[in-house]
Amino acid sequence: MSFDRLIDRIIETKNPSVAGLDPHYSYIPGCIKAKYDHVENPLEAAALAVREYNFALIDALCDVVPAVKPQAAYYEMYGWYGMKAFAETVTYAQKKGLFVIADGKRNDIGSTMEAYAAAHLGQVEIRGQKLSPFGADALTVNGYLGTDGIAPLLPACKEFDKGIFVLAKTSNPSSGELQDKKVYARPSKTVYELMGGMCETWGEEVPGVKYGYSAVGAVVGATYPEQLSELREKLPHTFFLVPGYGAQGGGAEGVAGAFDKQGLGAIVNSSRAILCAWKKEGCPEEEFAQAARREAIRMRDDIVQHTGLK
Amino acid sequence: MSFDRLIDRIIETKNPSVAGLDPHYSYIPGCIKAKYDHVENPLEAAALAVREYNFALIDALCDVVPAVKPQAAYYEMYGWYGMKAFAETVTYAQKKGLFVIADGKRNDIGSTMEAYAAAHLGQVEIRGQKLSPFGADALTVNGYLGTDGIAPLLPACKEFDKGIFVLAKTSNPSSGELQDKKVYARPSKTVYELMGGMCETWGEEVPGVKYGYSAVGAVVGATYPEQLSELREKLPHTFFLVPGYGAQGGGAEGVAGAFDKQGLGAIVNSSRAILCAWKKEGCPEEEFAQAARREAIRMRDDIVQHTGLK
Repeated sequence: MSFDRLIDRIIETKNPSVAGLDPHYSYIPGCIKAKYDHVENPLEAAALAVREYNFALIDALCDVVPAVKPQAAYYEMYGWYGMKAFAETVTYAQKKGLFVIADGKRNDIGSTMEAYAAAHLGQVEIRGQKLSPFGADALTVNGYLGTDGIAPLLPACKEFDKGIFVLAKTSNPSSGELQDKKVYARPSKTVYELMGGMCETWGEEVPGVKYGYSAVGAVVGATYPEQLSELREKLPHTFFLVPGYGAQGGGAEGVAGAFDKQGLGAIVNSSRAILCAWKKEGCPEEEFAQAARREAIRMRDDIVQHTGLK
Repeated sequence: MSFDRLIDRIIETKNPSVAGLDPHYSYIPGCIKAKYDHVENPLEAAALAVREYNFALIDALCDVVPAVKPQAAYYEMYGWYGMKAFAETVTYAQKKGLFVIADGKRNDIGSTMEAYAAAHLGQVEIRGQKLSPFGADALTVNGYLGTDGIAPLLPACKEFDKGIFVLAKTSNPSSGELQDKKVYARPSKTVYELMGGMCETWGEEVPGVKYGYSAVGAVVGATYPEQLSELREKLPHTFFLVPGYGAQGGGAEGVAGAFDKQGLGAIVNSSRAILCAWKKEGCPEEEFAQAARREAIRMRDDIVQHTGLK
């Protein structure tokens, strides 16, 4: 009922970073795609290629990174075939010991949000049988709807030892259009501070046991280092998922502020730089998984250098 | 590239309401579920029951309502089998002439948001073939990330004549925790007004031709009648999707303010009251679809009475 499980894995691998599994069709080497040329439905063929691509990446990364983060959009784009590959990716990664963060940014209220919680973190009961439809370890969510959108997730976090990451300050250039706006309060605060404060409150129901971080984390972008440091200080029980390192322009110095004195408190994501390492290196495409591993190791060393993780 | 197509259908059916297809397992009559008892995987059995339930509802509703709104959470809860039922529901509803609003509240940035746009509104190109993975007519989205999260949807709206609904003021009790907060501006405005204003701006790129409503709509809850009227006045080019009628406590008088002088400008959603009409009526469960039709007609008459739609 907290991020203890993830933090255990981070300490074990000495690596506070997560590999984003965003299998855009153009990222997948031709040698994998060619294997499914005989499959008639192109969406099915693409989804099978995604599955093979992901499994090979997971094999190459599972002793380097503590976690992977499949992004739902890149599976939905292949229709229900893609969602099958998504489910299989989650299961395979967990079998290999990885903590899986489903990046869905889901949001709704009441029984609808309970349905998302059951789909991605908990269980569904049908004919007396309990089943885990997708069964990730954590889910990213959007808190625009307030407590009604977050509270339905907490029972699943408690019962199944799962976590959520609520969008606070995102890494994109236009995030400030809403998130940086100051709202009337005493003292006045920005929307992202307000959201961060709500994460602390929501987290009280699912507190951390070993490390002090609750099951309610926050997404805070690597591209805004000052806000990262500021929020780290103000939100002592909120674990951070930090996107925007690498391809989006955030560097390792910039993410340093996301970490506490023990070098914990955050996990930094990289997707494209890892997935497309084979392109950047210019190595044979068959070596895509080894190239991803090399980039993941480079990233780990780069980040650990700037945190106090021992 | 606007909501003209939806509004045409509203005028044709003389009905500015949409039936939400939220197939919670408990809503489905036992006589349908029993047909799939022989299917080994319970998630698959449930998804097949959902499919049959939806198809029967669509048959019963397609000449009464202009649109249906399947809510993604109630399909994801049955895993990828559920997403297959979701895709089949979209296709079947469109075949029956219905406008389909995929209620996914999706949100992300850049190429990830493009992937959602391709998945739900546009096309994906694989092996030179262009395919529509889910192919809805409109998608609900969450604008917390700002323009970077909305702009990637607009090309799909233009190219394929689709629309989006951005969450502005949602119908739930806690929506005010963030959405009602006043932000510093001249004059000061609430977060939902800010979001509504952005909808007007985003919509300029995809303007309406026949009725003046762009392809960027907003979600505004029936449970906040004052805000509905206020936003209707301030956002003359933004079409509203209005949840919260019926089961959530919003009445027909309350939604009147959502409409313009022609009785257009909004579509009111009801899910549970239509889906569970057979339970409320206490009719034989085999009559669930006819009961849904009776409730949809009752709702239409109730709402039209309070709008100027001719």
